Amino acid sequence: MGSRLVERVLVIGAAGMIGRKLTERLAKDGGLNGSKIGELVLHDVVAAPAPTFKARSIISDLSSPGEAEKLVAGRPGVIFHLAAIVSGEAEAEFEKGYRTNLDGTRALFEAIRKMGGGYKPRVVFTSSIAVFGAPFPEAIGDEFLNEPLAGQEAVLPVPKSVRHWFASPRAAIGFLLHAADLETAQLGARRSLTMPGVSATVGEQIEALRRVAGEAAVRRIREEPDATIMRIVEGWPRNFDATRATALGFRADASFDDIIRIHMEDELGQRTPVPRQGRA
Amino acid sequence: MGSRLVERVLVIGAAGMIGRKLTERLAKDGGLNGSKIGELVLHDVVAAPAPTFKARSIISDLSSPGEAEKLVAGRPGVIFHLAAIVSGEAEAEFEKGYRTNLDGTRALFEAIRKMGGGYKPRVVFTSSIAVFGAPFPEAIGDEFLNEPLAGQEAVLPVPKSVRHWFASPRAAIGFLLHAADLETAQLGARRSLTMPGVSATVGEQIEALRRVAGEAAVRRIREEPDATIMRIVEGWPRNFDATRATALGFRADASFDDIIRIHMEDELGQRTPVPRQGRA
Repeated sequence: MGSRLVERVLVIGAAGMIGRKLTERLAKDGGLNGSKIGELVLHDVVAAPAPTFKARSIISDLSSPGEAEKLVAGRPGVIFHLAAIVSGEAEAEFEKGYRTNLDGTRALFEAIRKMGGGYKPRVVFTSSIAVFGAPFPEAIGDEFLNEPLAGQEAVLPVPKSVRHWFASPRAAIGFLLHAADLETAQLGARRSLTMPGVSATVGEQIEALRRVAGEAAVRRIREEPDATIMRIVEGWPRNFDATRATALGFRADASFDDIIRIHMEDELGQRTPVPRQGRA
Repeated sequence: MGSRLVERVLVIGAAGMIGRKLTERLAKDGGLNGSKIGELVLHDVVAAPAPTFKARSIISDLSSPGEAEKLVAGRPGVIFHLAAIVSGEAEAEFEKGYRTNLDGTRALFEAIRKMGGGYKPRVVFTSSIAVFGAPFPEAIGDEFLNEPLAGQEAVLPVPKSVRHWFASPRAAIGFLLHAADLETAQLGARRSLTMPGVSATVGEQIEALRRVAGEAAVRRIREEPDATIMRIVEGWPRNFDATRATALGFRADASFDDIIRIHMEDELGQRTPVPRQGRA
């Protein structure tokens, strides 16, 4: 694979959290899944941070007439489409949400379709838990266990029994890279995939935090039940069947302990204790 | 309920099969779920048959700028949105499919949103099995058992073990009327509902045909397996969980025998044997 070349890789939404991490990973790997990248094109409505890698940055609104056409004119072989207004903002700014999430994505697909000449790039498009229904505002989530890690107090507004589905950003970038490399024929008629994850209750997450970061971090969690947040969280899907994605080679984190370790390493620059299974 | 009035009912897609049956039913009932209708507005791209009922017909393309606004300007309290290009045609005529199914529906929702002044009509929007994924062309279906009823030969291209999910058009109209009457609060955050139906294999359908229409009708079925059609049909969902819709009062036909009887009565104008349970 080392000698393969992807002429052009386009990352739409490159200035976002996942977009930045993806770009950093491509720069670190010096390519995409072992293939060299001819040109990396970073698109967003604001300037994406320049990676340590030859990249061209384009700032525009994907939903504006003609912009999607410009982005695909260079016939990128792989397109990561990560640009989105998330649910809370999309509800508060209804027209902006529609424009970015629906019109922008449609403009991209239409621009690709109209290129013709057998142009069929691999498009990796991501969605969130909110795709399963509304309203699922991201009221609590990954941040709640991260504040104690950063030495801050965290308020726990839900019971410890609440179960949720997790992947680290590092695992998420792994999903994107693997999706870019899959053979289309493997996907059959259904090209949407639910990614694997770690299912954990809040109580299990706190125990993982205790194991990885110690008692001091756990003491920074203050239980303060909030009926409104509980009602919202009750509407979230708790668990997913990711059999298909797992069979296709997508890999989640091994445990919630690992998710915490990865957060400490990737976000806080901390070294973490080696997991027991790794010591033998 | 008899004295209630729905000022205005709008049927979009009124010239289609379900639209016509819905209009006929409203005319026959002289109202909607026991409420009188002030004005019935029938919309389609072609003229809808005038019912024996005071109705105004509008011919336009819902997706054309300004048309949806005109339709909702009279603030209809109930809107049945049945206009759609079905899967086969939508794939063959890609832009037409998008325009009608996506842009038309979006234009309707946007026109309602922009009316303001607390305008919140009940919108009943239907979709088909094809919403669960592609490709699900309607290659065989309700027609196959109807040809023998009309004295014609029918070719059976799939094994008798193939299972599918059925409702008579009469039951489907019942779904629409019931949906128009539900309290919004009963629906919670998820306003889409899978309708109940009768699950039956082709073999069970043939036995029902034998019971209702007799041996002569069954003899008009000729088995002629077709690998292509079998492959398409294998991709269809076989069964559905309609627990929620059933709890909300939606009622399917009682049996496949009933579906055949209803077809004979409603489509062929035939009198059918009274079911055994009705004779006691």
